[in-house]
Formats: sequence, structure tokens, C-alpha cells
Amino acid sequence: MIPRYSRPEMATIWSPETKFRIWFEIEAHAADAMAELGIVPREAARTIWEKGGKAAFDIARIDEIERETKHDVIAFLTHLAEIVGPEARFVHQGMTSSDVLDTCFNVQLVRASDILLADLDALLAALKKRAFEHKDTVTIGRSHGIHAEPTTFGLKLAQAYAEFSRCRQRLENARAEVATCAISGAVGTFANIDPRVEAHVAEKMGLDPEPISTQVIPRDRHAMFFATLAVIASSIERLAVEVRHLQRTEVLEAEEFFSAGQKGSSAMPHKRNPVLSENLTGLARMVRAYALPAMENVALWHERDISHSSVERMIGPDATVTLDFALVRLTGLIENLVVYPQAMMRNLERFRGLVHSQRVLLALTQAGVSREDAYRLVQRNAMKVWEQGADFLEELLADKDVRAALSEEAIREKFDLGYHIKHVDTIFRRVFAEG
Amino acid sequence: MIPRYSRPEMATIWSPETKFRIWFEIEAHAADAMAELGIVPREAARTIWEKGGKAAFDIARIDEIERETKHDVIAFLTHLAEIVGPEARFVHQGMTSSDVLDTCFNVQLVRASDILLADLDALLAALKKRAFEHKDTVTIGRSHGIHAEPTTFGLKLAQAYAEFSRCRQRLENARAEVATCAISGAVGTFANIDPRVEAHVAEKMGLDPEPISTQVIPRDRHAMFFATLAVIASSIERLAVEVRHLQRTEVLEAEEFFSAGQKGSSAMPHKRNPVLSENLTGLARMVRAYALPAMENVALWHERDISHSSVERMIGPDATVTLDFALVRLTGLIENLVVYPQAMMRNLERFRGLVHSQRVLLALTQAGVSREDAYRLVQRNAMKVWEQGADFLEELLADKDVRAALSEEAIREKFDLGYHIKHVDTIFRRVFAEG
Amino acid sequence: MIPRYSRPEMATIWSPETKFRIWFEIEAHAADAMAELGIVPREAARTIWEKGGKAAFDIARIDEIERETKHDVIAFLTHLAEIVGPEARFVHQGMTSSDVLDTCFNVQLVRASDILLADLDALLAALKKRAFEHKDTVTIGRSHGIHAEPTTFGLKLAQAYAEFSRCRQRLENARAEVATCAISGAVGTFANIDPRVEAHVAEKMGLDPEPISTQVIPRDRHAMFFATLAVIASSIERLAVEVRHLQRTEVLEAEEFFSAGQKGSSAMPHKRNPVLSENLTGLARMVRAYALPAMENVALWHERDISHSSVERMIGPDATVTLDFALVRLTGLIENLVVYPQAMMRNLERFRGLVHSQRVLLALTQAGVSREDAYRLVQRNAMKVWEQGADFLEELLADKDVRAALSEEAIREKFDLGYHIKHVDTIFRRVFAEG
Amino acid sequence: MIPRYSRPEMATIWSPETKFRIWFEIEAHAADAMAELGIVPREAARTIWEKGGKAAFDIARIDEIERETKHDVIAFLTHLAEIVGPEARFVHQGMTSSDVLDTCFNVQLVRASDILLADLDALLAALKKRAFEHKDTVTIGRSHGIHAEPTTFGLKLAQAYAEFSRCRQRLENARAEVATCAISGAVGTFANIDPRVEAHVAEKMGLDPEPISTQVIPRDRHAMFFATLAVIASSIERLAVEVRHLQRTEVLEAEEFFSAGQKGSSAMPHKRNPVLSENLTGLARMVRAYALPAMENVALWHERDISHSSVERMIGPDATVTLDFALVRLTGLIENLVVYPQAMMRNLERFRGLVHSQRVLLALTQAGVSREDAYRLVQRNAMKVWEQGADFLEELLADKDVRAALSEEAIREKFDLGYHIKHVDTIFRRVFAEG
Repeated sequence: MIPRYSRPEMATIWSPETKFRIWFEIEAHAADAMAELGIVPREAARTIWEKGGKAAFDIARIDEIERETKHDVIAFLTHLAEIVGPEARFVHQGMTSSDVLDTCFNVQLVRASDILLADLDALLAALKKRAFEHKDTVTIGRSHGIHAEPTTFGLKLAQAYAEFSRCRQRLENARAEVATCAISGAVGTFANIDPRVEAHVAEKMGLDPEPISTQVIPRDRHAMFFATLAVIASSIERLAVEVRHLQRTEVLEAEEFFSAGQKGSSAMPHKRNPVLSENLTGLARMVRAYALPAMENVALWHERDISHSSVERMIGPDATVTLDFALVRLTGLIENLVVYPQAMMRNLERFRGLVHSQRVLLALTQAGVSREDAYRLVQRNAMKVWEQGADFLEELLADKDVRAALSEEAIREKFDLGYHIKHVDTIFRRVFAEG
Repeated sequence: MIPRYSRPEMATIWSPETKFRIWFEIEAHAADAMAELGIVPREAARTIWEKGGKAAFDIARIDEIERETKHDVIAFLTHLAEIVGPEARFVHQGMTSSDVLDTCFNVQLVRASDILLADLDALLAALKKRAFEHKDTVTIGRSHGIHAEPTTFGLKLAQAYAEFSRCRQRLENARAEVATCAISGAVGTFANIDPRVEAHVAEKMGLDPEPISTQVIPRDRHAMFFATLAVIASSIERLAVEVRHLQRTEVLEAEEFFSAGQKGSSAMPHKRNPVLSENLTGLARMVRAYALPAMENVALWHERDISHSSVERMIGPDATVTLDFALVRLTGLIENLVVYPQAMMRNLERFRGLVHSQRVLLALTQAGVSREDAYRLVQRNAMKVWEQGADFLEELLADKDVRAALSEEAIREKFDLGYHIKHVDTIFRRVFAEG
Repeated sequence: MIPRYSRPEMATIWSPETKFRIWFEIEAHAADAMAELGIVPREAARTIWEKGGKAAFDIARIDEIERETKHDVIAFLTHLAEIVGPEARFVHQGMTSSDVLDTCFNVQLVRASDILLADLDALLAALKKRAFEHKDTVTIGRSHGIHAEPTTFGLKLAQAYAEFSRCRQRLENARAEVATCAISGAVGTFANIDPRVEAHVAEKMGLDPEPISTQVIPRDRHAMFFATLAVIASSIERLAVEVRHLQRTEVLEAEEFFSAGQKGSSAMPHKRNPVLSENLTGLARMVRAYALPAMENVALWHERDISHSSVERMIGPDATVTLDFALVRLTGLIENLVVYPQAMMRNLERFRGLVHSQRVLLALTQAGVSREDAYRLVQRNAMKVWEQGADFLEELLADKDVRAALSEEAIREKFDLGYHIKHVDTIFRRVFAEG
Repeated sequence: MIPRYSRPEMATIWSPETKFRIWFEIEAHAADAMAELGIVPREAARTIWEKGGKAAFDIARIDEIERETKHDVIAFLTHLAEIVGPEARFVHQGMTSSDVLDTCFNVQLVRASDILLADLDALLAALKKRAFEHKDTVTIGRSHGIHAEPTTFGLKLAQAYAEFSRCRQRLENARAEVATCAISGAVGTFANIDPRVEAHVAEKMGLDPEPISTQVIPRDRHAMFFATLAVIASSIERLAVEVRHLQRTEVLEAEEFFSAGQKGSSAMPHKRNPVLSENLTGLARMVRAYALPAMENVALWHERDISHSSVERMIGPDATVTLDFALVRLTGLIENLVVYPQAMMRNLERFRGLVHSQRVLLALTQAGVSREDAYRLVQRNAMKVWEQGADFLEELLADKDVRAALSEEAIREKFDLGYHIKHVDTIFRRVFAEG
């Protein structure tokens, strides 16, 4: 997480201010529940909210205390006591640091998820808009980087829409994974704290109680969360790589928007480089990398150790901030993508007719030619186009063996582009559940 | 995937025989659908099933053809034509290799998922049985490897049960991710194949039609699948690490079952090593590693490239076979785990009374001592136990400042183990949804 | 490691036969050393060599014993005793299984390294040959996939040569990392075995004694080894990606060799796909993935645990066999790569003159125009070429502001391709240390 | 890289101030070389040094320019022109942004390496000091977490010393990998820049000229660099895990230093947790993770793309700062580690005599008992110790079959601890190359 690749809204979730505010809320809600249960005086709970609720926590002061105690939650509680006064002794009763830390971390991840879900919604909207705009924009489909058969640019975007729709569902699942609260005390037995405190805090913080915690919330939840972000990042990479390909000089079927003052190269002024897509490719690598330490965090020792903590202090912000930035960047890129339908058609026609080879192959077999023979017939004419720049249709019409099986009309009929896009509406309905 | 860590049931899914049988079924079902649509003769479809259905495919022959054509699906189709005869020309009409390969791969992953789900059910049953058996077996809970407060061995297993229940749900989601079928032809436009063929094949193979494919089924699905296996592997590692800790000489609260003829060490005959758990730790590392290339596979070029193929030929079997083996091994380990409740109690009592320190701390604050003072009072007595082997109860009773706040009776009452396990039933109900 | 991506020479290193033969040699050399030291009878050492040296170990028998003892080295020693007879009791004296297993694993890795080094030599030879062949074949250099300035195809290959030369050096370092032998007994104290036995075995097996082992050879060595293979795989990927780009339809400056009988697509007979390069991309992902568990293997517990073992049984063969296959495939690909110099020139001239923009920019600044102004002058003319297909030279000649700074002759002189390749010889000397 | 886990010395390398200063030096040295070659006026080069050398670059201003140009090097050069005046037009002549960026990045990595090498030296010194201090401190060696045979605590540290010595050598290699300079212009052909400029800048910046660059310095170098950091991190993890094991309650043979004011737990005041070691375990996971995107960065497209940039902006600081912090923390931990030799001896004697089992086994075979019989004899007595807490020596003396082979004196002689540490000096000589 570096400022260059951060948006304030997401970065704020990970600020010390936000963290201490969430800690306070957890402690104060817990005090309320304990007051309700008669464990602490109602007056104390009220005082905690009153004094702590309006206080701006002094982060420098908390840091100072932590330097002595080497314990962040004790440092915060000490500072809170300075604010709240003697009633502070009713704070954190029967609780352990992890009750606060883990519940706070999950609150942060849930808030981050909500931003990411909104990011995905915006991306999906952009993809849908551009997909419908180019539903019938014919372009060559490519496999292995080699021209295959015609498709439409809208279908490319529809595929991305379907992919990010899956990502959205995955992120919802991932959000649910981490939307839990544990206020279960040391080693999670509730020995010193009533389970009803947990239930109250969970409800107030918008979480579910963790069915069984062992002082910590189990880290398989977080492993799944960060693994999901890694998969989403991989889908970003896919679309970014597509744009990079489309923008390369020889293809140039689409371009990232290039603003007026922007400079592509300090040396070569004509250059317009797909730098946003390349940047997204790199950011995707980073988000993917963060999944690994999250998985290694699962196997804590016995009821808990604290090896996960340093990892999460880093990947919590790093993964969510980077993914947020990447999704927003990708959305802008898609919204502003400059598309060149004419260039698409020009590329498609590069090997005149060759894209129709499969149709001819099929027609030959349907006319009774064995598959092996049909393949050879088509390939020998295709090779002339490929190697000598011949016209595929003319070659076929001049091939006696082909003509023995197919009439001129039958052959010409195979060279119709409309044939390839006749099911676009069907596919769009499947993807967008509308016409 | 090596024989040492393979179970035949799972390995069979990845045999050439199974693969070619699935390929055949896809082609034959597709022929049925085409016959129904009047695209190929009904008689042809029937002949394909009749001749191909009972044939044992000659793998050596297919390999031989592939050496020439360098294309596995063409090699298979050529061999199938040798079996089926002239009607074979109606096979694979308008289809592309990926229609067969990708749908087959997903069938294999779905079958693998079903075995893994059954594995998880068996593991969950074992965990539940042992958890209830040891619901009230008191043991020391540990944080940072250091004694914390009492818990029960049943709670340790209940936590594992809850964790693997989550894994089961994740695997169901992952199974759904890959349970799709694509028969959409070159670049996925259905130009040469009717979408109804896909619908028919999907239904027959127990899959859903892929809403939009681009010749290939999008690989974000598989990335999510293998990432999920990696998370499950991480949970295996957690439980394996727990057993390794419990079995270490100084702890020895539980042991892997040690069969009669087994030898622990070629040099030290007394040794009984937690080799199964250690082995599971290593296997988890492998399954985790396979998630990475699966994620790198997502960004295929344009409509498709074939870089994913070599990866999947390896991780398809490697990840599922290894995880299956690990789950079954873990289940046996749990079923046969030798548990030593007396050793657990002996370890718990190692620092007499110290595990009750937090209760004393709480009692002091409830008696009006400030949190800071209470902490200091408890710590100075705790340190004598820790460093000089003193008895915590006696130290407290002899501490004037403590006694100023708490009566002898009040102090003694804090040393009751029952206090720590009073919510075990509550937690078990939450985890197992029963008593 | 699957047969499809294996070469016999490398696979053989990992066969049970090879493994047991190495185990035998370690034990027999150790017996020699012990005989020399008077620890075991000379006659016994001789008998071990005589009977064991010519025996073919019965792998099925060893497996059978292992099923009972659950210990592979004991199983082998038991079988060896069946072959050697009563003298077998002098085998393995004071040794521990890891002495045999770890030394054997390193012997296998060293042998694998030697094959990989030879692979790299062959690849370097192929790169060098093709680099000199195309030293002066002008082609457009591309940054961000966008045309930049001219370079030569030979320089592309020279860069690959330099990169793989570095890989070779890294592999030599990695080989040295794992070329150690430990015969130090339980926990590595030499309590039961004389260090001179280790020295003798090390020498005979072509290894160095491990300065300090703890029953096992430390796994940081192997982490470094597999990390190095991962880096080499990444370099393979780079070159494979280059070929994939060059072969794409719109670029088509080079192609993988396409043999006569080969079929590119079951549906589109004209297609010639860069399937070898794509395959190498996938294989690189796999080799890269294996580095991770190797790194996780480093932190064994105390003097050793056995979690590394299952990992190494898999990645030992998987990583070396896959990398060997990939290197050999890449070498063949380079040797047979079909290069199209005319297509390179055609692509270079696609935007007539635009590649010379930086020279014009420089000339302008040298003629006294400020850098900012020069940039604007060049860019406004470049944009006409880019967007309207204009001719760069003509535009510049017609631009009054440009002409105010530069004469026609001065401008024309900037459009000489020779200018860009004048240092090719210099660079070749630096890379190949010859002309 | 977060402040919590950063040391200023390393963090400073990655500050904007440092970066722009290095950029300036590269440009100014290049201007010197060009002046020497007569390409730019000597006076201009002098002015650049004079005005730029003493200027504090205004980072806010540079950021402002970058927001418009979207190009960081152009933004810097524009700001530099504001400082230097008209002579600034001679800056960056014939160079490209990557010449500056890549050379700067390598300067930063080299400086980071130098700090890390110093860190390793300090760690090695601490390990050596503590190793010699505990050269003869007998402790139980453990395999699989189970007591094996005696070793010394000094040997444990000597192994760590040897391991980090290897890490030091690896880091030196890694430093050499990235100690290169490229000033080769667009696509690396030196078309617009004389190779002698590169030679001059390289020498002045303490680097070697990159033999062949393609506008960028090839990223296999950086992949190797970050992979090496990942391996070093794994060695940190190994030592951290060792300390965590030693400190766990039941073992407690060593402890992290616990300062006076420090608090282990907010709830349990007696707790002293190995939090530094656990923290190091987590940090190691992070440094390991950064190796992956570095490897994925290798396969840039054609001569270069910019996907590596975002990755390096993050992992450059993140990996070096985190590793630096971890090494320094580990050094302090080792220097201050509290070691409990008495506890070591107490643990060793836990199963009286059992650690000598292998010696008895050997003695039996040397007395003519077959290996199989000897194993059974030892194991049946060992099991009584293990399961019933018997005394191993007494059991052996009472076992008729054992006594049939060995005299009482011969058996008693096997129970001497000195036997196990007789080669400690030898090993220390091998590790430390002194006594």
C-alpha cells in the first residue's frame, strides 16, 4: 500500500484513527452488554460512551505508552482510562486483547469488502454499457494469438462481465467468511465473559458471533478472504492483458484514453502506451502474492500464536487498498476505452476469407467427404492464403476436388460474417439476463 | 501425484481410460442432440453409442496417432473413427477440441470434488465423535505456546470440526464453480453448433451450460477451485501441527496410533514420531503451491491460448489426489489418536494455580482495585511461581495487598477448574447444533 | 512430473532403481571407511560390495517390507541383509536414515544439475548461432507493445543469450549449494560415527562434507536450489512469450517450426499456433510454484522433522524433470524457429518514419529548440502519422517551425536505419566476448 | 513496509528525496561524460552540477507536474530545468526514462544490500558469541519434536551461524546480480547515446555496465535478488521457530528477554510470550511472498513493458525494509536470549537413560546380535521406560537376553553424556574455521 496506488476512502479504513474508534466501540458495546447483565454499573457504561464517544484519541500518546508496555491494546486501554477516568476499570472486563483486535480486523475487512463490492458494481456497469455498445461490432476472435473465427467486441466485454459477476459473488462469500465477532475471553471458553456480551457486540458491529473461537478468530476465514481477492486480481489481469494486446501497434483495435497533457515517452513523442493496463498487470501480481502469507497464517500454534499479526498489519491494507485502486482504475479504463471498429474489420480481413475455413470444412463433410479428406482439402488451400497471400474463396473455387463436392454458390454462402454472430443475442441474454 | 500419496479411487479419475471415456460420452451425447435437431442422422448417433460405448479405447494406438498429428483430440477422433466406421464423420460436427477438453476437465474436477466432499464428511464424523468423547477432558489452553487458561480437548476438536465444516461449504462452492459445460465451437460463438447441443450435453454430464465461453471455459473458475483446495490444505496443516505439538516429548498429551510392527527410527528404537502429522504438513505445502499456477492461468490471451493446459495436466491430478490422500490420512489419524487425559491434567498443574491468574485479576478489579494496580499485584505473585516454583494460591494468601481487597475464601474460590468449562455445552451447541 | 513432459535421462535419476543404487553406494562406501578405521571387518566391507554391487534390488520386496515397518530405509537394509547375508550387520553402523536419504537426495540433485547445465549449454549454443545469423536483421523494437525504435533480431537473441548465461551461473551456484554429504548420525553429533566416514563417502560420491548437520542437511540449501530453478523457468517464460508475440497473426515475424503431419486445430486447418511456446509458459508456472514449498521446508522443528520429505518426493522429480523438458523444448524451438526478415521490415515501416521521431527530437534540441518545444513539435507531426496515416518525413518537411530549426538535408539524414544498428557489434562483443 | 517494522536507515533509501538525488546524479554524471565526448558543452555539465547539486528538489512541485504529464521522469526533468535554467536542455540527451529509473533502482538495491550485509554480520557475530558461550551446554537433540540424542546448545547456534553464513554469501551474489547500470537509450541500441556515457555513469555510481539491455535492465536479475531475500527470510523463520519451541511452557529451555515494563497479556499477567520470534515468523512469510511477483516480472513483453514498475515500487521497499527489520530484531533476540542450562538438563533426563538407546543398540550388534534382534531387545526395554516410567539402565541390566550379550560394565558405560559431545570441537572448527 503506497499513496500512488491508494484511494482515500479505502486507506482511511486502515488509519490508526479508524482502528482506535472501532476498538472503542467494541469496548463500549461490551460494557453496555455487561451493564445489562448487571456485571458492571450502568452508570459506568454510560460514562464510557459519553467521555470516549466524543474524544479524539491521541495517537502519539498511545504510541508512547506502547513503547513502554510493548502491548498495543493495553496502551489503548491506558489512554482510554486517562479520558474516561475511574469508570475505565469496568472496560475490557473478562476480555482479552484478541477479542478487540480480531473483531476490529473483521470490521475493517467487512468495510473494505463493501467498498470493493461497490467497485465491482461500477466495473460491471461500465462493462455492460460498453458491451451493449459493441454488441454487434465484429472483430476477429483469436486463439493462441492467431486469427480464428469472427466474434464481436461486445462478446469480449460480455465475457468480462460474466467473469466479474462471478468475482462479485465470490467476494460476497468472502465478506461473509470474515463477518464474525469473537468476545470469548482467554482461549475462547467464555470463562470470564458471558456469551451474551459477544452476541450484543456482534449485532451492534454488524457481525455474526464466531461459533467457536480460541481467543482468536480462526484464520482459515482470512485465508479464504485473501485468496478470493487474489482470484479477483487475476481476472483484472486477464482484462488488462486483453487491452494491452488490442493496443499493440500491429493490432490497434482499441486504446486506453490518452489525455491532452499526457506524455507517453520521454524520448518518443508519438508513443501512446497502454500504461494503465500494464500497471494493472503488476498490481494483480501483488494482490495475488498476498494470498500466500494469509494461507500460511492458518496453522497457528494451539489456541493461538501471534505470527499472523505482522502479516495482517501489512496485507490487510496492502491487499484491499491495492485491489480497490485496481478496480477503480480498470473501471475508468473500460469507460474511456477508445474502440476502433474499422481497425477490427481491417484486421479480420487480413487473410481474406481464411476465417471461414471451418465452415468450408463442415460443408465438405456434410457433402459426404470424409473428415480426413475434408481437412486436407481445406488445409491445402488455406496454406496458399497463409503463405502466398492468395484469396481463400478464389482458391477454393478453383480447386477441382472442392468443387466436386460443393457448388460455387454453396462455397460463396460460407463467406457470410452474419453467420458467426447469429447467437450473440442468445449469449447476451444468458450473461445479462435480458436482451 | 505419486503412488505413495495416492488413493486408487481418486487416481482413477485421471487415468487415460477415464479421460477417453468422458470424451466419448461428450461426443456421443452431442451426436444425440444433433440427431434430435436433424443435423446428423439418428442412425449415426445410434451407431456411435453402440460401437463406441462398448469399445475399450486403445491408448497405445491413440498415442501413436498423436505422435504424428501432435493433437490429442484429433488422435482420439481418428481412433474413434477406426472403431465406429464411416458414421464417425458425424462426430464432433461444429465442435472444437476445447469443447471436449474443457468439459471433460470439469467433469473430472466435479467427480474429484465429490470424493473430497465424502472425505470431509468422514473427517467431520471422526472429529465429532472424538470431540464428544473428550468434551469435558480438561486441558490447558495455550497462547504463544505458553500456558494460558484451561479449556477442554473436546473444544480443540470442536474448533477443528467448525473449521472443516467451513471447508466443506467452500468446497461445495468450488464444485459449483467448475460444474459447467461448454460446447460452443471455435471462439465460443455457436456459429457452427446449436446452443441446444450444449444444453443437452450439460444435462447428461451433470453440469450447467457455461453462460459465455470463448472456446475455453474461463479459468477464473479453476483458479477459485484450486485456491479453495489450498485453503482446505491449510486447515489440514493447522490440525496436523496441533497433533505434532501434543505429541512432542515434553507435552505428550496425545499420540498418533503406533502399530505393532512400525519402526520409528532406524537408530532409536524408543522413538514414536508424529510422522503422519508431519507428512500432512508437507502435503499441505504442496496443495497450497498448486493454487499459484492456477491463478496465473486466468489471463489467457484473447479468446484463449493453451498455456493453461500443461499446468492443468499436472495440478488437476496432483492437487486433488494429494488432498484426497491427506484428508483420508487425517481422518484415520483423528479416529485412532491416542489421548492422554492424565498427562493433560499433569501439564495443566505444572505451575500450580497460575492458570487462575486472570480470575484473581478480575476479582481484584471488581473489589475496587484499579486495573493497573490489580495487574501489578497479580504479576508480582505470578512471577514467584514462574521463577521460583512457588504455589500461586499460597503466595496470594500471604500477600497483604491482595488480602486487603479479597478474603481468603474469595481467593480460594477462584481456583475452581469447573469455572472454565461451564460454557462448553453452549459452544458445542453452536458448533454441532445439538447437545 | 508426467510422462508427457519428461525426458528419460532426467526421469531415470528419480527411479527407485537409481535411488536404491545410490543408497547402496553410500552404505558400502561408509562400510569401507569403517573398515579402514577398524570399526568393521575389512572382509565385511568387501562382501557388501561383492554381493550388493552386482545385485538387482527387488523393489517389490522392499515395498513389501516397508508396508510392515513403515520405514523405507529399514526396509531397504532388511532387503540388503537378505542379499548380503550375515555381514549385513556391519552395514549402517552408527548411521541414521537421514545420512542415507539426504546424501542420496543431494546426489540426485547434483546429477539433475549436470543435465540441466548441459541443457543450458545446448540452449546457449542455439541462441548464439541464431543471434549471429540475425545480427543485422533489422526489426522494430517495441516498448509497451508499441513500436519504439529499430533494433535487430540478433540483439533480441543476444539478450536471451546473456540472460541464460546468467541462469547458467546461478545454476552452478545452486548445484554447489546442494553438493554436500552428511554422515553424522542421530542429531548430527558424530557420537556414533567417525567424521572420517563422512569425509570418505563425500569424496567418493563427488560431494563436500556438510560442515554442520543436525541429522538432516539444512534445507536452506534446497530452498535456494529450487528458487534458482524457478528463476530459470521465469527466463524461459520470457523467451516463450517473445515467440508467442512474434507469431501472432498481425505480427508474424517468426514462427515455431510446423512439421508436415502436424495439425493446429481440429476445426481450423489454416491455423499454425505457437503451442510449444504456450506450453513452455505453462511449464514455467509449475517450476516457479515448486519454489514455495521448498522455502517452507526450511523451518524444520529443532534438529529435524520430516515434513520436508513428502514435499521433496514430489518437487525433486517434478521441478527437475519439468525444467529439463522445458529447456530442451526451448532449444529445439530456437534452433528451428522460422524467421521472417521481410515481415520484420514490413512491420517496421508500418508508420513510415515514425520510428525516427526521437532522432528528430534530439536534432531539434541540439539546434537550440527547448526540450519542451521540441517535444511539442515532434508530437504534433507524429500524431498525424499515427491518426491519419500521414508520412512523417513529409510532415516534418512541411512544418515551418521544424524547418526553422533544421534544413531539409538535416531532416532527411535522420531517417537512416543504419544509425540504429551501429553499436550492434559493440554489444555482441560484450555479450559473446568476441566479434 | 509499515513504520512499525521499519528502521530509518533502510527506509531512507526509498524516500522520494533519495530517489531524486540518485536521478540527479545519474543525469549529471551522464552530462559529464557527454561533455567529455564533446556532445554537450562542458559549461553546461558544470552548471548542472552546480545548480542541481546544492538544490533541494521540491517534491510537491514534481508531483504537481507529474499529475499533468503522467510521467515521473519528465516531471523531474521539468523541475530540474526550473532549477538549472537553459543549460537543462543538455540533460538527458539521447537517454530514456528507463536509463534513469532502472539504474536508480539498482543503486537503491545495492545500498539496501549493503545494509542487509551489515545486518547479517551483526547477526553472525551474535550467533558466534552465544554459540561459543554454550558450546558445551548439553541439551537434548530432538527429531520430530521427540527426544533423540544429546547435543549442545552451542551446536544449535553453530548451525544457525553456518546457515546465515550461507545466506551472507547468497546475498553477496544477489547484490552482484543487481549492481548494473544501463544508459543505452530507447530499446537499448545506443543509437542516440555513446556507450562511453554508460561506462562513466556506471563507474561513478559503483555499478557495472549491463552487457545488453533492452531499454530496461533485464528482470531476471531482480527475480534472483528477491528470491534470495525470500530464502534468507526462511532461515530467519527457522531460528525463530526454534526459539518459540524452546520457550513453550513445557520446554522452557530459553526465553526471549523480557523487559521490566513489558506486559505479556492484558488478561494473564504471568505470561511471557515469545512475541518477537512469532513476529519474525510472520515477517518471514511476507518477505517470502514478495519473491513471486518479482519472478512474474521477468517475462516483460518484447523489449520492455511497464508491468514490473508497480510491483517494484512496492516490493523494493517492502522486502528490503522488512528483511532489515527482521534481521536486526533477530540479532537483538539472540544477543539477549535468556538460556536455562539446568532446564535443558532436566528435560534431557526426563526419560532416564532412554536417550542412550542407540548406543546400546550398537553395542548389541557389535557383540554379535543381529540388527533385527538387537532392535527388538532395545525396543522392548525402551517401551517400558516410555509407557511405565521405568529406568532404562535398570531394565537393561535386568533383561537376560541383553545381559547374555553385554556385561553390566559394558552397559553402564553406554550411559555417558560425554560420549555425545566429543566431536563438538571438530564441528566448531568446521563452522567457525577456528577452535
